[in-house]
Amino acid sequence: MMAPVTSAHNSTIKLIRSLKEKKFRGQTGLFVAEGEMVLARARAEGWEPEFLVSTDAIDNWGAAQRITVTLNVMGLLSAQNNPSRVLGVFRQRWHSEAQPDGLWLALETMRDPGNLGTILRTADAVGARGVILAGQSCDPWGPDCVRASMGSIFGVPLVRMETPALISLCEAWPGEVVGTHLKAPIDYRRRYASPVLLVMGSEGRGLSDELAAACAILIRIPMTGPAQSLNIAVATGIMLYEITRT
Amino acid sequence: MMAPVTSAHNSTIKLIRSLKEKKFRGQTGLFVAEGEMVLARARAEGWEPEFLVSTDAIDNWGAAQRITVTLNVMGLLSAQNNPSRVLGVFRQRWHSEAQPDGLWLALETMRDPGNLGTILRTADAVGARGVILAGQSCDPWGPDCVRASMGSIFGVPLVRMETPALISLCEAWPGEVVGTHLKAPIDYRRRYASPVLLVMGSEGRGLSDELAAACAILIRIPMTGPAQSLNIAVATGIMLYEITRT
Repeated sequence: MMAPVTSAHNSTIKLIRSLKEKKFRGQTGLFVAEGEMVLARARAEGWEPEFLVSTDAIDNWGAAQRITVTLNVMGLLSAQNNPSRVLGVFRQRWHSEAQPDGLWLALETMRDPGNLGTILRTADAVGARGVILAGQSCDPWGPDCVRASMGSIFGVPLVRMETPALISLCEAWPGEVVGTHLKAPIDYRRRYASPVLLVMGSEGRGLSDELAAACAILIRIPMTGPAQSLNIAVATGIMLYEITRT
Repeated sequence: MMAPVTSAHNSTIKLIRSLKEKKFRGQTGLFVAEGEMVLARARAEGWEPEFLVSTDAIDNWGAAQRITVTLNVMGLLSAQNNPSRVLGVFRQRWHSEAQPDGLWLALETMRDPGNLGTILRTADAVGARGVILAGQSCDPWGPDCVRASMGSIFGVPLVRMETPALISLCEAWPGEVVGTHLKAPIDYRRRYASPVLLVMGSEGRGLSDELAAACAILIRIPMTGPAQSLNIAVATGIMLYEITRT
């Protein structure tokens, strides 16, 4: 085992630290995931890190460059209050298209990375085929989304597209295209015709008019109490479980 | 209209700033809520602030002391990236007991204030009668919970109790006491006997053994995909909608 890296000025350490910023994730196409359980999921899904950083000796993982660091340096690299003992630097993966098969989820203008990660976790739990990020989305490869996904970022294929491309996809979709809308007349408790494309709007504004018009059906999750809306990750969770209800 | 407060050293401004910290919220029994929609909900629910702080002239609200501040000072007071133009300082309200009637939710060792606020929002949406915080809970009156609740903190009665008191409540509960457990044999899709007390465990560890034993029924939300668990706010949302399903 080589001596641990102790210096924050080491060039690889500087690179990895920079990945907390969207700009550098965009430039390099890399992202960071932390923790043994999360990395075990990455491995199970066939991912291989570029760098594998740990505070202890660690086994080989493909061609990953292994780097041992002190606890101090790990603290600089980690985005968590309690740094993990291991983290991996991975290459981002975007899938080129959404094959209409099974359940897909499209998110319009998803702003909050924590909510996005939580939604990926739920999409993973119901066995969704993938998630489409349309319009101005936050970056799924940032630390807040990766952490909230609890490893599901490695299991759920991600596709990004502009809103017009999503509208075209909705129009060509062979099964049911379902949008949620606060004022829709149809209750969410119904059967859905597979393959389903579920389209969720942004937290503040809901679905845009153009995307709402491209949905075959608009449904509503009723609220009997005074709250005016649900958190987007909760609403998406309720819908994903309803669609996969048997 | 009096001249706006421009100084961060004004004693009331210092008091309000201090309320970002749990320690000072505990000492004073006060908390801060921001934004016009949130304050409109507080007013509708019969709350009255001790201080009403705004960047513009603002109407009377009961006996609240009105304070006009500069945008700079509002930036110091706000816990948000985009400060609201108005915030209120309110006295925390704890309810002394949970009347067994309608739907109640008990959360054991709720650690994350954002998740707690999101859960309050959903509890509000389904018209739950209140939420019990048992064991080592995060502070619901902190800025992250208040913000995530989107005003529901003013509409959902909160009760706090130690775990033994919650166990006694479970045992005396006249309707159904429902716990969720990853390994429970019973699927969550069923009818629930009113009044329901839904007991949710902590994000990492689930229900404690003692609380699980006090539940009349343990149910499970199935996961068909590889994810090992759901976010606690998502799982709670799915359960609250299932229990109130008609």
